[in-house]
Formats: sequence, C-alpha cells, structure tokens
Amino acid sequence: MIDKILAGDRRSLARAITLLESRKADDQTAAAALLSQLMPHAGKSLRIAVSGVPGVGKSTFIEAFGGLLLERGHRLAILAVDPSSPLSGGSILGDRTRMETLSRDERVFIRPSPSGGTLGGVARRTREAIVACEAAGFDRILVETVGVGQSEAVAASMVDAFLLLYLPNAGDELQGIKRGILELADVVAVTKADGATKAAADVARGQLERAFMVAKGAHGNEASPVFAVSAVEKRGLDEVLAALEKVFAAGGVEARRTAQTAAWFEEELVAQFRDRIQAGTLRAAELRELAAAVLRGEMAPSSAAAKFLAHLP
Amino acid sequence: MIDKILAGDRRSLARAITLLESRKADDQTAAAALLSQLMPHAGKSLRIAVSGVPGVGKSTFIEAFGGLLLERGHRLAILAVDPSSPLSGGSILGDRTRMETLSRDERVFIRPSPSGGTLGGVARRTREAIVACEAAGFDRILVETVGVGQSEAVAASMVDAFLLLYLPNAGDELQGIKRGILELADVVAVTKADGATKAAADVARGQLERAFMVAKGAHGNEASPVFAVSAVEKRGLDEVLAALEKVFAAGGVEARRTAQTAAWFEEELVAQFRDRIQAGTLRAAELRELAAAVLRGEMAPSSAAAKFLAHLP
Repeated sequence: MIDKILAGDRRSLARAITLLESRKADDQTAAAALLSQLMPHAGKSLRIAVSGVPGVGKSTFIEAFGGLLLERGHRLAILAVDPSSPLSGGSILGDRTRMETLSRDERVFIRPSPSGGTLGGVARRTREAIVACEAAGFDRILVETVGVGQSEAVAASMVDAFLLLYLPNAGDELQGIKRGILELADVVAVTKADGATKAAADVARGQLERAFMVAKGAHGNEASPVFAVSAVEKRGLDEVLAALEKVFAAGGVEARRTAQTAAWFEEELVAQFRDRIQAGTLRAAELRELAAAVLRGEMAPSSAAAKFLAHLP
Repeated sequence: MIDKILAGDRRSLARAITLLESRKADDQTAAAALLSQLMPHAGKSLRIAVSGVPGVGKSTFIEAFGGLLLERGHRLAILAVDPSSPLSGGSILGDRTRMETLSRDERVFIRPSPSGGTLGGVARRTREAIVACEAAGFDRILVETVGVGQSEAVAASMVDAFLLLYLPNAGDELQGIKRGILELADVVAVTKADGATKAAADVARGQLERAFMVAKGAHGNEASPVFAVSAVEKRGLDEVLAALEKVFAAGGVEARRTAQTAAWFEEELVAQFRDRIQAGTLRAAELRELAAAVLRGEMAPSSAAAKFLAHLP
C-alpha cells in the first residue's frame, strides 16, 4: 500500500485516508503506523487554504484555478476542513458535480471532510490527509473552508498561505467576515469580476486594499494584495497564484510549519487524552470516584481534575 | 469571604469571581478550594441562556425582562459566555450603560465575560461564576451570548432553558441562524413587536411557529413556543417567563444538570491536561523527545501521542 501511494496511485491514497479517518479502535495502531511511514515523504507541496462564504463561487473558482495549476504541471489535491453540515453543504457528491472537469482529471485528487465529528476531529484528519497527499506526489494542496465560524483559523493552522474569496456585492456583515479573518488572509480575491458585477468587484477590491493598508500598515506588515478575479473569463487567476507563491517563497515557511506541527502534536495529545477519559482506560476507578464526588456537589470539577492529574507521574 | 458570599454580599461575590477567573498559577489552588466550598450551596436557581445576534435588542430585552424578575421577588445575576471580541462587543462598561436601571439595583449582579481567552476557557469560568452567584442567593441567572459561532452550544451546556431572541425584519441567514440553534431554543421571542415593526414581528412569530411544528413534530417533541415581545411596551414578557418556568418545571432538569456537570468535569480534565503539557510539568523529558521526533518527521503526531499516553498508568 505504501509503495502504491508513493507511486501516486489515487485509489490507494483514498484507501489510506479512509484508514486514517477511521474511528474504530482496531484501526488506530495501523493508521498511526501508516502515517509515520508517510511522513518522511511529505512536505513537498504548497498548501493553500481557500475560504469564503457560501455563494462566493468557491467551486467555480477552484475549478478554474485548479485548471491553471494543472497547466503549470502541478498535481492537485483538494481537501476540506468543515465538518459536514447544512451550512457547508460540502458532500463528496456536491463537490464532484460542482467541479466537473477537475474531478475527471487523473492529476487531481478530491476528498471532502470526513463526515460527522467536531471541527477539532475533522482538523486532525485533514492534517493527516495532507501528509498522505504529499507523500503521493500532489504538490499543490487546496484546503477548502466555509468562511463561517472557527474553521478558517483551523485551516490557517495547516497551510502555508491563506486565500480569502470575497463577494463583490455584499457588506462585511453579510459575508460573516469577522475582524481577524482579514488578518488571516495572505491574499484576497474578489470574485465575479465579470458581466453585471464587474464594476462592483473593482470597487470592493479598492475598498479592501485601503482597509488592508490601514490595518496592516499599523503593524508594520506589508498589506495583503487584493485582486478582482473572474473564474468564468479566467481573469486574475495568474496574479492570485503568483501572490500565493510569493508568500511561500518569502521565507518563514519552515518556521511556520514547525510551529504548526508542534501545535498539531499538542492537539493529538489532548484529543487522545480525552478519548482515554471517555473510554475509561485511564485510572478508571479513581476517575469514577472523583466524578461521583463532583456530581454529589462535594468537590468542584477544577479540584477533582487537579487531584486526578496530580497522580499522573 | 465565604460567609459574606453566602450572605449575598455583591462585592465579595465579585472578588470571588475574580479569583476564579485568575490564570495565575498561585491562585489555582485557592480558586479550586473556594469553588468546592461554594458548590454545596449552589444549584437553587433557574439558569437561562439568552441568545441573539447583535442588533436584536438583547440589552433592552434583558433590562425589561430583568425588571419583571425583580418584581416577582427574584435576585438576578447576568453573566456572559462570549469571549470578548469585536463581534460580541460586550464590555463591562457597555453592559452597564446599556442596562442602566438593572445595573444600579442591589438585587442584580452583572458580570461580563472574562477578557481574552478562548471560548472553552470562558465557558469554564462562566460555569464557576454560576456556582458562585447561586451560592450568593441569586436565584435567576441569565447567561448572555451572541448568536454567532459556537457560543450558543456552550451556553446551552450550562443552563436549564434556552431563550432565543429573533429579529422581526431579517431572514435566517442575516441572523446567522444555523439549523441546530432552533433545536437548542426552548423558547423564542421575536423582539421589537411595537411601532413600525409590530406587524413584521407578528408575521415572523407565525413563521417560526410553523417551522417548529415541522421540525420538532417530526421528532415527536413538543414544539417550542414562540412569542412576539416588546421590551419598550413591556408586552409578552410574562408569557416568555411563564414558558421558561414551564421548561424548568417539566422535569428532567436534574438529569440534564447531572449530564452537564459530568461534561464540565471532562472539560476540566482535558483543559488541565493541556495546561500541564504546555507548562512542561508532565513527563517533560519524554515529551520533549517525542516532540523532537515529530518535528524531524520521523514519527506521526498520532503515534507520538499514543506512545506518550501509553506510559500514563
């Protein structure tokens, strides 16, 4: 299986990710071993988050942008970080039909978020899927996220560059744009810069550019570039790609990845600790006693937790 | 201090909550001990979450609704669960000036979210503040939350009844209403049912009522009641209060609180485990070695975490 993945076989890659996503206790050891074997072959890609609210034209953008990446000779993996929900709407069927050309191309690997689970759980699995895709030779990774809630921050924690797609015709509030997301964005693309919405896209581009100058200039950082793009007319895509590659080339990527991996390890520790607490496989008798004392109102949860952890060596 | 809190002294209560919120390592033991002493005196209140997007008129509603609770002879504590952010905008100054009458009343205790920190951290502290307020004799607790992001679910995890405030003139999307939040809501109040927006509020009330019948009826549950209220004209407030008290009286409260406390204990365990990992006070040498192997790409985070946890007895 490892050899097939390293040779770039998409079916083996898909099976590997299914194993990595498995929550069965029996699969955990095999999944961890597989990942450890893939890790030395990972890391050779540019990882890009693509975020934007529903309606911004994300699938259409990715279809066109992905085509550009293929023209440049890249192999492309598209992953997602949103827990499947009515909001994100991202099912495998949805993605595949909305990205028709890409989904039929052998140089493209599309994988939706694992179904169910929390944002934290999805994030763990998406990080592992990135490793597997890189080991399989995919050198451009797009991590899709709906720009709502906390998934952008999670996506930012696993990529080299963050691309925010922005609707030309809606105010910040309607787009669920929070102060903070503009700070996450390395590059912004105002979509639908064509036809009836072209003028609006150009206006929005100018406004965002000024907003960045004020916000980032204050911190002495370079303002993130803003582009008006048309996926339909394939305009502005080269510029967006060049800007993202510039972020990657600017240095600091290794340091950022190291920090991301350290944080990932911490998340794994915490998540597996929680799993063991829930499964009752960590000092179960002591834990039951403390929980009972808490439920009788004799002990605060904080005291009981401190007592439990004090006994860990 | 304990005696003063139990006697209902607001200044001692405020000082106690400040201690509970402290992140200084030196304060942790004292804070946990204080909370353990207060816990046996807690539990005698009706805990209500009040959620709604900015602009829904939450402060105005709480000002009027709180007045009604005081008339009924209750003592009222108002807490918040949103991490302070540009979105929630809830600073102590903001709350106090927006709830002018309540903030000057001795039977009312207002406390904003602890500043900074994550949603999880704020949730831990708010749960503890509820205990302290109850021990001080406050028998109606309002937990305020902005209806954006995940804070509603967190608020729901610490209350007996969930009240959703709903704007008369905006669609679901604009209100950031996610499928799911209607399931959380035990009672819905459409605000601003007065003047120019009265008709719209009545229309929205009818629509929501029908939506509940479809959604909840399907699961065999009783549909949550929906009211049109005017804080200015003090209309509909009695009905909202009666509906919330009915939820409380309907039974199941004890079982729900037990489940909430068990989950709270789990959150404390996980949070304190994370604290110890970050502080390097849990098998630090082993942890450093594993982290180094992960960062060299020799070991997957999941494998390294499993190895670390396997050594915990």
